[in-house]
Amino acid sequence: MADRKFALGIDYGTESARALLVDVADGREVATAVYQYSNGVVSERLPDAGTQLPAHDWALQDPEDYLRALEATIPVCLKEAGLKGDEVIGIATDFTACTMMPVRRDGTPLCTLPEFRAEPHAWVKLWKHHAAQPEADRVNETARRMKEPWLERYGGRISSEWFFPKCLQILDEAPRVYDAADRLIEAADWIIWQLSGRETRNLCTAGYKAIWSKREGFPRREFFAALDPRFADVVDKKMIREILPLGARAGGLTEQMAARLGLKAGIAIAAGNVDAHVAVPACTVTGPGKMVMIMGTSICHMVCGTGEKNVPGQCGVVEDGILPGLFGFEAGQSAVGDIFAWFVRTCVPAAYESAAKRRKISVHDLLAEKAAAYRPGQTGLLALDWWNGNRSVLVDADLTGMMLGMHLGTRPEEMYRAIIEATAFGTYKIIRTFEQHGVAVDEIYCCGGLPERNDLLMQIYSDVTGREFKIARSAQTCALGSAMHAAVAAGAKAGGYDTIHDAAARMAGVRDKTYRPDRESHAAYDKIFAEYDALHDYFGRGTNDVMKRLKALKGVQ
Amino acid sequence: MADRKFALGIDYGTESARALLVDVADGREVATAVYQYSNGVVSERLPDAGTQLPAHDWALQDPEDYLRALEATIPVCLKEAGLKGDEVIGIATDFTACTMMPVRRDGTPLCTLPEFRAEPHAWVKLWKHHAAQPEADRVNETARRMKEPWLERYGGRISSEWFFPKCLQILDEAPRVYDAADRLIEAADWIIWQLSGRETRNLCTAGYKAIWSKREGFPRREFFAALDPRFADVVDKKMIREILPLGARAGGLTEQMAARLGLKAGIAIAAGNVDAHVAVPACTVTGPGKMVMIMGTSICHMVCGTGEKNVPGQCGVVEDGILPGLFGFEAGQSAVGDIFAWFVRTCVPAAYESAAKRRKISVHDLLAEKAAAYRPGQTGLLALDWWNGNRSVLVDADLTGMMLGMHLGTRPEEMYRAIIEATAFGTYKIIRTFEQHGVAVDEIYCCGGLPERNDLLMQIYSDVTGREFKIARSAQTCALGSAMHAAVAAGAKAGGYDTIHDAAARMAGVRDKTYRPDRESHAAYDKIFAEYDALHDYFGRGTNDVMKRLKALKGVQ
Repeated sequence: MADRKFALGIDYGTESARALLVDVADGREVATAVYQYSNGVVSERLPDAGTQLPAHDWALQDPEDYLRALEATIPVCLKEAGLKGDEVIGIATDFTACTMMPVRRDGTPLCTLPEFRAEPHAWVKLWKHHAAQPEADRVNETARRMKEPWLERYGGRISSEWFFPKCLQILDEAPRVYDAADRLIEAADWIIWQLSGRETRNLCTAGYKAIWSKREGFPRREFFAALDPRFADVVDKKMIREILPLGARAGGLTEQMAARLGLKAGIAIAAGNVDAHVAVPACTVTGPGKMVMIMGTSICHMVCGTGEKNVPGQCGVVEDGILPGLFGFEAGQSAVGDIFAWFVRTCVPAAYESAAKRRKISVHDLLAEKAAAYRPGQTGLLALDWWNGNRSVLVDADLTGMMLGMHLGTRPEEMYRAIIEATAFGTYKIIRTFEQHGVAVDEIYCCGGLPERNDLLMQIYSDVTGREFKIARSAQTCALGSAMHAAVAAGAKAGGYDTIHDAAARMAGVRDKTYRPDRESHAAYDKIFAEYDALHDYFGRGTNDVMKRLKALKGVQ
Repeated sequence: MADRKFALGIDYGTESARALLVDVADGREVATAVYQYSNGVVSERLPDAGTQLPAHDWALQDPEDYLRALEATIPVCLKEAGLKGDEVIGIATDFTACTMMPVRRDGTPLCTLPEFRAEPHAWVKLWKHHAAQPEADRVNETARRMKEPWLERYGGRISSEWFFPKCLQILDEAPRVYDAADRLIEAADWIIWQLSGRETRNLCTAGYKAIWSKREGFPRREFFAALDPRFADVVDKKMIREILPLGARAGGLTEQMAARLGLKAGIAIAAGNVDAHVAVPACTVTGPGKMVMIMGTSICHMVCGTGEKNVPGQCGVVEDGILPGLFGFEAGQSAVGDIFAWFVRTCVPAAYESAAKRRKISVHDLLAEKAAAYRPGQTGLLALDWWNGNRSVLVDADLTGMMLGMHLGTRPEEMYRAIIEATAFGTYKIIRTFEQHGVAVDEIYCCGGLPERNDLLMQIYSDVTGREFKIARSAQTCALGSAMHAAVAAGAKAGGYDTIHDAAARMAGVRDKTYRPDRESHAAYDKIFAEYDALHDYFGRGTNDVMKRLKALKGVQ
């Protein structure tokens, strides 16, 4: 063990953070530990004395949970691996995004100060905080009116989840917090600040969430002024313009942190990064034309290309945003595993639940087993996978789910299969849209919870898209991706690597088992996809806005 | 009791027959008895030595079950009521239709003869025998090609369930049976023959099922010849042209039958009739503009008008077919209660089943209770009620169910409500189509299983259609309707009535409780119905035939 080097990847998720200690030489995962945030997702009352949040679409977090996570996991990993700590050459983190907060000039979060403790806007706004929709609408209207050139890079629409709508909501609703904030900062960058003692800003969140690009920088001052005169200088007064590329060394671990975590001071701390994006090289992908899909409750699709293209409904295109030297494209489906979970929760009869219990398998597995007996088209069912709206390519949260083809003999497993197929059609639509707009998708790599345990789903995705699906070797792809970036931040001289390509070649891998499309099934699915596509446009592109009108009627008293 | 008079109504259903003994003076139901057919619906093997049926869409019956039903029920009713039998002034029956069979000149069913016992085509073809679809297609194509004027009276399409397609199937597949059949006869008329000793043909089945009309008679010989030269003289060789109006006296009860049943010989036997149609006067309806809905697994809609109109998708219009002097229109929804039963069987989670069990209520009642908490539009869901195709107004068995508006929080009771609403929209579409084509629907009367026990459903129907729903007093509306026709066949001189109007005025009634539309709910539903209507036409009238294409793909190997 003496001459081996290790890297630490910390994956900050929505409910918990995971540390993964990885052997730099071969990517072997030697120890892992998870910390469940003590204050979790704050959606009703603040952790102070129980201050009620203003509305149900708020989602906050406690920044102290991020620090507690480090102390609760890193020493455990070291102990489990039997390491003293000085074999670790670097740390990198990945975070949900845009997850942001207001802080003092020294990095102190406002919510930790007594005078702001009961102020909701002083806390961390989690990625899924959806209360800034009015501000997002204003950003979009203003950008369209002023013909801002960057709007197209984001599929024509800035999400309420992103950075400037969240900042603007603070200004609108809590100007005192806005004024007191010396910095508005991504949690991804704040945690690096805490580790390295240095304020930096990473390229990935800047590009995908804060409308920054390598060639054009941030939006112009006039645009921000048009949103609100007090907002005109948000970039120069509340942010820093220096942007670190991914895998860059943000600084060295501080003495104080080193002592708290049992590591050596000065080891490399990588620039911040985003959970989905670090997974790409962890799937072995370092070049263009290879899509990485993170498949779980939702799906995030990432692919790199050699030039900037404006693809309808993409979440964003950022130069160097995923891999250096390439344009990183991101798209997504806002609910996938979530729809299957809804189905199991809502639409499965008692007889199925007891059969699954008797056989000691999950209801999911029972349904998948029964659904696997059908060939493509045999159910006669077709669904639109919009139970949580449509992120790509329609970018429309007001769309809803649809299923047709039911008859008096339709069985639960047929509907379950139809829902899986619908999500596969959703992915296929994204792939085809990329290709139609000049972004090649030649190979597909997967990671996340779904590919781990759902053969039927993976085969359907392969058959629908007509492509081979490869699966990342690691079950902790995000944390592994961070560890790889830590090795790159440390550099070859310190026992790491000089490029993410080198790191991927040594530390990442895919499994032997892949899913290959069956030619006949693909041909059958092509016919059904044509039906999906027609209904996609009919319901999704304004021919019949019935879903939106029904949604509007829900609120009418 | 000495001077009281009673009438017997026998309702021949799909699985059983019910006898109802009714006081002619006031419609009081003094006794009832049910006979479950010993051979039920024959759909796999003949009751002989187990001969296998040729296909799964066959549905046969045993005519001896019809006779056994008389002997098993009528004496029981007399005993229960404490009558000797000579107080009964007449018998009338109603039957499923078209339910038909081949018989000898003396009325002997071919299937009772040893040489035909193992021949499926010798048995009774039940209304839901669907194996004559190729013959129905031939009837429709030939009629269109030859521009037969009667086709429009049947919504432009003759069903495979009806009389001539079934006859033609016998000719196609069992010419020996066709040749041996001196008569091809409705079971509705055969049972009257058995009771009265006289072969008659009733106007209702002749009109609705055998393409007969008072003004034009049966289709011309050339048409039958075009179907098959051997079929040219089917009417003159296998049927009788004399048609008895409803409520007419077909004859008197034979000595032999009187002895078997414990009744007086010679009492009035009414002309045959159909289950749905006899229910109309039993709901007190004897005039135009009053729709009667028989609501159960499916819905049958009947309304009378003062002139012949061709309404798209009507099952048929027959002069005097429901009430004398009026044109009787029939339409229908092919699945209603059946869809609710499918939902409860297929889409309700274990927690609901156990909650219902705990509270000792049905899952239907639990869902209805939860669904009642929503106001119109609040679920955001919309369905098309085509789980068993669409009978009226589209006449298309290949259409399928659809639901949209689902999101991750959608609950089972919301989908249940959406399905109820969809069937109400289906009824509203039928009502509006009648009205748009000159057939008034001013009032609505209901009977059948659904109105008995489903407040929520009745209120939704009332709110959707904007009409008051009245409910028949009797829970046995068909059998009561038959008893009323028995009283008319007996006539006023024998203690009955001379017209069905007189009988209805005395023997029929509606309940005090009615369902009245809520104005706001109706206004809300009008908006949602507009959405239903648009999707009805989009999926049902050829704009997007996705349902049919998907159904076709099911069969592709």
